[in-house]
Amino acid sequence: MIALTFMLSILSGWTFQQKIFDPLPSWNDGPAKTAIKEFVRATTDKSGKGYVQPEDRIATFDQDGTLWVEHPLYTQLMYCFGRVPDLVKAKPELKDVEPFKTVMTGDREAISKLTLPDLEKIAGYTLSGMSEDQFSAQVKDWLSNAKDPRWQKPYTELIYQPMLELMKYLRDNGYKTYIVTGGGQDFVRVYSNQTYGVPPEQVVGSVGETTYVYDTATGTSSLIKVPKMLLNDDKVGKPQGIQLIIGKRPNAAFGNTAGDQQMLEYTTTGGGARLGMLVLHDDATREYAYGPAQGLPDSKIGTFSQDLYDLAKKRGWIVISMKNDWKTIFSK
Amino acid sequence: MIALTFMLSILSGWTFQQKIFDPLPSWNDGPAKTAIKEFVRATTDKSGKGYVQPEDRIATFDQDGTLWVEHPLYTQLMYCFGRVPDLVKAKPELKDVEPFKTVMTGDREAISKLTLPDLEKIAGYTLSGMSEDQFSAQVKDWLSNAKDPRWQKPYTELIYQPMLELMKYLRDNGYKTYIVTGGGQDFVRVYSNQTYGVPPEQVVGSVGETTYVYDTATGTSSLIKVPKMLLNDDKVGKPQGIQLIIGKRPNAAFGNTAGDQQMLEYTTTGGGARLGMLVLHDDATREYAYGPAQGLPDSKIGTFSQDLYDLAKKRGWIVISMKNDWKTIFSK
Repeated sequence: MIALTFMLSILSGWTFQQKIFDPLPSWNDGPAKTAIKEFVRATTDKSGKGYVQPEDRIATFDQDGTLWVEHPLYTQLMYCFGRVPDLVKAKPELKDVEPFKTVMTGDREAISKLTLPDLEKIAGYTLSGMSEDQFSAQVKDWLSNAKDPRWQKPYTELIYQPMLELMKYLRDNGYKTYIVTGGGQDFVRVYSNQTYGVPPEQVVGSVGETTYVYDTATGTSSLIKVPKMLLNDDKVGKPQGIQLIIGKRPNAAFGNTAGDQQMLEYTTTGGGARLGMLVLHDDATREYAYGPAQGLPDSKIGTFSQDLYDLAKKRGWIVISMKNDWKTIFSK
Repeated sequence: MIALTFMLSILSGWTFQQKIFDPLPSWNDGPAKTAIKEFVRATTDKSGKGYVQPEDRIATFDQDGTLWVEHPLYTQLMYCFGRVPDLVKAKPELKDVEPFKTVMTGDREAISKLTLPDLEKIAGYTLSGMSEDQFSAQVKDWLSNAKDPRWQKPYTELIYQPMLELMKYLRDNGYKTYIVTGGGQDFVRVYSNQTYGVPPEQVVGSVGETTYVYDTATGTSSLIKVPKMLLNDDKVGKPQGIQLIIGKRPNAAFGNTAGDQQMLEYTTTGGGARLGMLVLHDDATREYAYGPAQGLPDSKIGTFSQDLYDLAKKRGWIVISMKNDWKTIFSK
């Protein structure tokens, strides 16, 4: 009798665990969730062909549109706009110069019409000229005050809960999780640990050059940000950035646009069990809907074309439908 | 009685531990060993002003002349020479072209007279044109066969035992140890884990550009090494490389030449408890003696000038005398 009770208790404990211990509670059952769990099983099962040594387990995540909201504009661009008043205060000669003049009016209609060279000029001025330490302080300060116009919440609260669960699930299975973003590497490093549990040294992003300065008068040293690109971490720049910072081919990669295509390609052509996934923004109610894949509205920010959709099918990359695969969107 | 015996056993256990547990057994007592232990104590003592959060504990190590032998020539240059026969086999048109012709003669006297542009040409040809995966395989193959001419041992066995102990001691105290080398980042990454316990992603080094290639015929992807410098990780390039790969200012840095000056400067001007150390090669019997600091013979490889020696004294950087501070030189 004792043995039977004992066995029953193990059995019910097991069923209980299976039921309540779901590492991905915000994911609906379906092909996306199944693919993730199967990938983890295959790469951590020592007896299987797909086994990956713990030190080689690398998963890379795009940020904008994959981990957090990228509409109506990339958060880092909002940051650049937000820095313009301080910039004009420090350099009054810019007050009457375009595009700074338009940004200072606060006229959203006019701002939304700024051209790409305008945006590049604003980024160039607001993302360089200061030391890396000063830049971090400026980003931290802005993040603690700025709010997304639609949700009236800090940007670092508009993080996708299912992706946080996915990152944690992979880490719990020995994976090192990296952010591989087209955004500024030093920008994302400011909040990556607190927001995603990803330490600064695990952020790969677009990088500008720096100048090293030692000040003999004060005995201090700093790296000054220079407006010259060292690595554009987008498209082919993503595998290049991964090689530069990590030096290993990832086993899993997650993105949402054509800028992530080469990262997924590089990842999934590595042999063995691999996972490539693309987030499709098809939920206008809970977040945004844009493609233009699958008849979704076109978008200038975060384009997911029908070509990319077809390529994903062909290459075995899983498309995550925010509408169908995710129970919850935001972490807070 | 029981209580007293118990207390005595704790006490004797403590004394015992203090006596036999020396984390740096290959270091003689002296200012270098004391400085290391004091640095670790200060940065890990939660009640002290110098306490550093575990996630911010970063220690950076130069490689050539700091972790392993750099005389008579940098190991990576020996590798480049070693690759020339295969290169000439693949490109027979180089057979009669200098400097390849000279290298193919095997005439050490003539090879030692090659100029810097000659060496750069050899490096350019032997370190590019292949994929990163092919390069890793070539380095691995070479390392398993090549031997240092003086010791007739594999290069990866000519590692300084006291530095291995130092790296382990720092890691045991929560430090992340990085190699920050003027040598090729992808070269060092091939053996860093096995040799130093430093995973590839914790190697910062000089980096060339790569081209991403997807081969539609085979469905494979690779990064091809291009002979164009992206980062020269020497002098001011060391703080720049540290910012690029790590994104944090180190708490401790170790080097042996003027190429490490800015890394030590950047590290030790960060405020709080900091440690900067320079290895002086003053042991001709057990290794090599070169400076020309302190009247040691001059050297083209790994120069430690009297200026650097004086600067070290002025800035509080500790000079490690291989002769006096190290009981043992090599790990094997």
